[in-house]
Amino acid sequence: MANPTAAILVIGDEILSGRTKDKNIGWIAEKLTELGISLKQARVISDETQEIIDHVRSLSARYDYVFTSGGIGPTHDDITTVSVAAAFDVPVIQHPEAFKLLVDHYEGTDIEFVGARQKMADIPDGAALIDNPVSAAPGYIIKNVHVMAGVPSIMQAMFEGLAPSLTGGTQPTRITVQCAIGEGTIADIMEAVSAEFAPVTVGSYPWFKPGQFGTAVVLTGLEKDDVQRASDALAERVRALGYGAEIQ
Amino acid sequence: MANPTAAILVIGDEILSGRTKDKNIGWIAEKLTELGISLKQARVISDETQEIIDHVRSLSARYDYVFTSGGIGPTHDDITTVSVAAAFDVPVIQHPEAFKLLVDHYEGTDIEFVGARQKMADIPDGAALIDNPVSAAPGYIIKNVHVMAGVPSIMQAMFEGLAPSLTGGTQPTRITVQCAIGEGTIADIMEAVSAEFAPVTVGSYPWFKPGQFGTAVVLTGLEKDDVQRASDALAERVRALGYGAEIQ
Repeated sequence: MANPTAAILVIGDEILSGRTKDKNIGWIAEKLTELGISLKQARVISDETQEIIDHVRSLSARYDYVFTSGGIGPTHDDITTVSVAAAFDVPVIQHPEAFKLLVDHYEGTDIEFVGARQKMADIPDGAALIDNPVSAAPGYIIKNVHVMAGVPSIMQAMFEGLAPSLTGGTQPTRITVQCAIGEGTIADIMEAVSAEFAPVTVGSYPWFKPGQFGTAVVLTGLEKDDVQRASDALAERVRALGYGAEIQ
Repeated sequence: MANPTAAILVIGDEILSGRTKDKNIGWIAEKLTELGISLKQARVISDETQEIIDHVRSLSARYDYVFTSGGIGPTHDDITTVSVAAAFDVPVIQHPEAFKLLVDHYEGTDIEFVGARQKMADIPDGAALIDNPVSAAPGYIIKNVHVMAGVPSIMQAMFEGLAPSLTGGTQPTRITVQCAIGEGTIADIMEAVSAEFAPVTVGSYPWFKPGQFGTAVVLTGLEKDDVQRASDALAERVRALGYGAEIQ
């Protein structure tokens, strides 16, 4: 059976301006692979209500899981929640549990929990909270969309908390065959192995060091035995051409 | 006048699996901002022909410039060129100039320019070449789509070469006001300044250090005087609340 699919939606002008470098796509991608969930697409979009609505709707309809990051803080440019609610035609409500979490969080600090900060307790009606052990303001889940903070440390803590609730699939088997030759020379072999052993996928990653070069060929699939057989076949054919090939 | 718009399309299963971390979106984003081109969206998609066709078409129709990275090497999983050609309903041809560049590149090396390697001279009919000073295999431009390599060093060299041909706009003015207070406390001020001085945009980036916290408020716009006035107004109002605010 095919693994569940996912998309990531990073919301933030600061990424599109280049001012901040995104670290969330790569981090979530690794986690999803470990869980046996197949990340099919990632998007970075701007802080604009209609943009968020359109992308949440289309990704939610197409993939099993959607993970968003960014735009759920207390300020005017944090418009993710109203946009996600609009995408699903539900109102935004002040969530009693989220409100209490925030009251408790600010109690005994110098910061008053008033005004704009209370916006962090606003959640689309019907959404379930995602715990935020770092700074209390929760994320939430509505339908198949998981709305998380943009700050990497907070996003990561939120994701680790919700991960056990995700239905994963088979973790793919990945075998690397290190070949002591450029990818052009073994392209025909890779193409043949890819065709013969489908659905095992064959990716090639050439590398260069002073005085040395080679190609890391990465074979991936859900059936471990198939990936092993494909890797053996590839290594054997590369060696038959007269070049080193080491299964790692 | 509004600045020209752009989208980035990163093509590669290795990014979606988390095996390789994307560095191209952030790098291109910074360059576009310097050029006065407004990056509106970035996507990472898988190595699948129909995916590439669909995304190239939709992004090309919507934005002034599209920049792709990945999938133009010699191997079977490098399917960007056939897909981009299909997106624009043109055939793939062996480009004589690209072919000659590659012949010259491999001359005098141990590597024979035969078989799969010749695929790197295949270009959609009508496309203009993008110079590759690193490894010869060129990128190309078809309509408003700029097709580049995925390896960051090669992509960067290609982009630097083509940048002078892009029609840039006004480089935005960006002023940071460092405020010695959390973003929740000044959220109302930021919202008011954002409304009063539109289209100047106001972004807030809270930060925390042991024993210290604050908010970097970033004001951005194409009209320098407006951004300056908005920054002055914001700093003044934060100070009136009793907190430090330094224009940087």
